[in-house]
Amino acid sequence: MFSSISSLYSQMPVANLSSGLPARQLKMPADILNASLGGWGAKSPLYDNHWSRTQGRRPPNPLYPLSSVGRWVGFEHAGFQGQQYVLERGEYPSWDAWSGNTSYPAERLTSFRPVACANHRDSRLTIFEQENFLGRKGELSDDYPSLQAMGWDGNEVGSFHVHSGAWVCSQFPGYRGFQYVLECDHHSGDYKHFREWGSHAQTFQVQSIRRIQQ
Amino acid sequence: MFSSISSLYSQMPVANLSSGLPARQLKMPADILNASLGGWGAKSPLYDNHWSRTQGRRPPNPLYPLSSVGRWVGFEHAGFQGQQYVLERGEYPSWDAWSGNTSYPAERLTSFRPVACANHRDSRLTIFEQENFLGRKGELSDDYPSLQAMGWDGNEVGSFHVHSGAWVCSQFPGYRGFQYVLECDHHSGDYKHFREWGSHAQTFQVQSIRRIQQ
Repeated sequence: MFSSISSLYSQMPVANLSSGLPARQLKMPADILNASLGGWGAKSPLYDNHWSRTQGRRPPNPLYPLSSVGRWVGFEHAGFQGQQYVLERGEYPSWDAWSGNTSYPAERLTSFRPVACANHRDSRLTIFEQENFLGRKGELSDDYPSLQAMGWDGNEVGSFHVHSGAWVCSQFPGYRGFQYVLECDHHSGDYKHFREWGSHAQTFQVQSIRRIQQ
Repeated sequence: MFSSISSLYSQMPVANLSSGLPARQLKMPADILNASLGGWGAKSPLYDNHWSRTQGRRPPNPLYPLSSVGRWVGFEHAGFQGQQYVLERGEYPSWDAWSGNTSYPAERLTSFRPVACANHRDSRLTIFEQENFLGRKGELSDDYPSLQAMGWDGNEVGSFHVHSGAWVCSQFPGYRGFQYVLECDHHSGDYKHFREWGSHAQTFQVQSIRRIQQ
């Protein structure tokens, strides 16, 4: 579709973190999250399948820019807890660029992991009116900034089954509010109650859903 | 796709604003923006093609809920100026629900108008690298939370031509940051410089683009 493809995907640098923390190379094509590490003043490519900032290092300063190649989820807390922020490819020059889907943003990102199964062209999801996959259901393979505009009654979803790809659900229309990342290779694709959507989830309120871009 | 369709579209109430401000009926199927008007304590369906709050009335209290049927754009200032907020169908229970795409949100919405030409299934847009429709180009008919992931170089777009439908462009990936609404029936679909995207636009930075849902 576009006339040129960035060459960044062809780069496979060996991870070299100035702090000395060992980094394990991903088994998937290059997913790189460049974060300028506060206080060290150097940008480091981060190659780590499940990299958490609980190793005694300071989390990235939220004022420093992030640039993402590939697709990642950043978490408010260590151990992939707290609010979730989908980081698709692009540049996030400041804190408000990655946090700007909610008016109660986290102050920093403390743990990160890649979204392995994202597949924009082959993503399928079933949503259910009630928890435990009960009630009316709907089949999704596209993006819906408003579930109600497509005929869904109410502002809640009870449970999800992810057949393929990865999805992000949001509290409010237009992909605003808390985000919940749902993946076909987590939980066997089954999310039967909001307790399984993320530690920050407190209600069944979901009004927009979209695919995560690969 | 879903098993029931809300009956709200079949309602055609005569607009009845408690303030006495005359409301003109839309010539299109019902687009209703219900705003609880601060201080009056009553919900009023608003039927108005171009309703601006410059008539000496207080703008909606941002803490009061909005519910939208249809698709609207809310503006920070009167006369459709300032930041733009796409309001697709659903419920926005508080200020942060409609403003939560940017970390520098407007404090209130002061003017509103419907998005007449939105057509989720038949939307086409051409984006250009430079202003005045120059440079490399790309053809879009789908949603792109990351233009770079689809092969677009850089974090800017110079100009747009909207062939059909209505689109919202955002500064950052994942539909975050300032929004710019582009419509096939405005400007003849031509937006040749960021000055034409909205009074709040100050740069060419656009990293995500999506269709507005009808």
